[in-house]
Amino acid sequence: MSNFENLLKEKAEFADKIIKSYVPINIGIMSKIIETMDYSVMAGGKRLRPILIMETARKFDFDIDELIPFMAAIEYIHTYSLVHDDLPAMDNDKYRRGKLTTHAKYGEAMGVLAGDALLNYAFEIGISSIKESKNKDLAIDALEVLARNAGYSGMIGGQASDIENEGKDMDLDMLDYIYENKTGALIEAAMSMGAILGGASEDEISDIEDAASSIGMAFQIMDDVLDVIGDEKELGKPLHSDEKNNKTTYVTIYGVEEAKKKVEYYINDAKEILSNVGNPNPFLDELLDYLTVRSK
Amino acid sequence: MSNFENLLKEKAEFADKIIKSYVPINIGIMSKIIETMDYSVMAGGKRLRPILIMETARKFDFDIDELIPFMAAIEYIHTYSLVHDDLPAMDNDKYRRGKLTTHAKYGEAMGVLAGDALLNYAFEIGISSIKESKNKDLAIDALEVLARNAGYSGMIGGQASDIENEGKDMDLDMLDYIYENKTGALIEAAMSMGAILGGASEDEISDIEDAASSIGMAFQIMDDVLDVIGDEKELGKPLHSDEKNNKTTYVTIYGVEEAKKKVEYYINDAKEILSNVGNPNPFLDELLDYLTVRSK
Repeated sequence: MSNFENLLKEKAEFADKIIKSYVPINIGIMSKIIETMDYSVMAGGKRLRPILIMETARKFDFDIDELIPFMAAIEYIHTYSLVHDDLPAMDNDKYRRGKLTTHAKYGEAMGVLAGDALLNYAFEIGISSIKESKNKDLAIDALEVLARNAGYSGMIGGQASDIENEGKDMDLDMLDYIYENKTGALIEAAMSMGAILGGASEDEISDIEDAASSIGMAFQIMDDVLDVIGDEKELGKPLHSDEKNNKTTYVTIYGVEEAKKKVEYYINDAKEILSNVGNPNPFLDELLDYLTVRSK
Repeated sequence: MSNFENLLKEKAEFADKIIKSYVPINIGIMSKIIETMDYSVMAGGKRLRPILIMETARKFDFDIDELIPFMAAIEYIHTYSLVHDDLPAMDNDKYRRGKLTTHAKYGEAMGVLAGDALLNYAFEIGISSIKESKNKDLAIDALEVLARNAGYSGMIGGQASDIENEGKDMDLDMLDYIYENKTGALIEAAMSMGAILGGASEDEISDIEDAASSIGMAFQIMDDVLDVIGDEKELGKPLHSDEKNNKTTYVTIYGVEEAKKKVEYYINDAKEILSNVGNPNPFLDELLDYLTVRSK
């Protein structure tokens, strides 16, 4: 493992500990809903969004205590979106990260409710954190960004258009809108929150959001590529699901090689922007390079 | 129509206007998700929860501007819970209030996403309102109560236990837990938020929550009663759904007449508590009486 990969692993484990520290204590009459929330959150993952909050904040005034609740909250929102995405009415996936999906294990009704509970809980964490924050106004701004980017004008809007266009021919404008929102909106929220909580200026926040938007595009296009040339075992899910679902993607439009070049283009754009805002963060730069060669 | 019924109608229309004023403007690429959110919210209803916020606040320092966003937010949460409850994986209801349910009209995937979007949007409204509030600390407290009562330790916890116990024999403790949370938690949130935003003291808030808890019980038991002796046309949904789903309810345990007496008992308990806290609000008292004789 390279030095970078060791660092990434450490940071993911750190994020993991934070996320798990917020899991409600499983006692008494509510035990089933908590067990189900737990199962979904514990299934693991890259913890990319909390890491992006932390590494973006490091470019400004870094205060980990201010970041921690938001690192948890965004991962709870990401997790709920996966739980609902996997439902039979949506992508109908039985496995994720090599484990049974929430509804496959607990039944469809509990899949719906656990997703709802995770989304709601993200805001419970966020609202409580405002009360504890050293700078309430920044915490309110951060939570506002999270709420907007997670909602109808962000992630959910992208998911709805994705569903609506399934099996239809899509132009690039629609595809870009879907990528920017379905995948990009939460990545943008993460980096924007990191900048806000780090005390960045409005101009700096706006630059960070531009960079994040490119990272979101790169990340989703890389997902398209991995769905074709990835390793099922490493990905923890079957390949060729886009083909199976008749989905228009960057790969179906441009082919694998050209799609990979788009990933590089977007990552270079993000790195260029980031090099001109806040303090240098070499780990963040390496993380972006890593996203272009990741295998899961 | 009695004077009270006219007033109730006026107040429901006022709440309706507020709720509709928050519906996002339906333009461009996000139009489908907004149309679906819209449809769910516009389907109507008693608007009981926003009215309870308003009428409880009237017992203290009443400032309508501080209440408005929360009146909208709680109704968006109530609406999302109905949209998800109606899904095939949950109660599988095709009609509500005499109209097609959201998933029956827009498909199951959009039913899931519209519910998610409504829940998320409630918090978007709440968080923005904190910024606009004349008293941020009270607004934060109010939103915290809403989040907690809507989540795993409130409404969703009750729904999960309801699902888990379907078709099973239930003891009264479990049934009470389900009623207090599935139905009671949001009613308690409404009255608690009204008291908080009205500047009530901690003791007063606690009394209001006790009263609200009894009102929640009365409301749910009355629902059980109406499911047996109600009028399908007025209710806008088929009768005997509890029997069909093999549900344990206050009616199956106590019978209709005894269940009606429980409704009266809980309403009298709430009125007794309310008579000793804050300013008198005769309309609120009449509203509670009305809940014991309502037909929808």
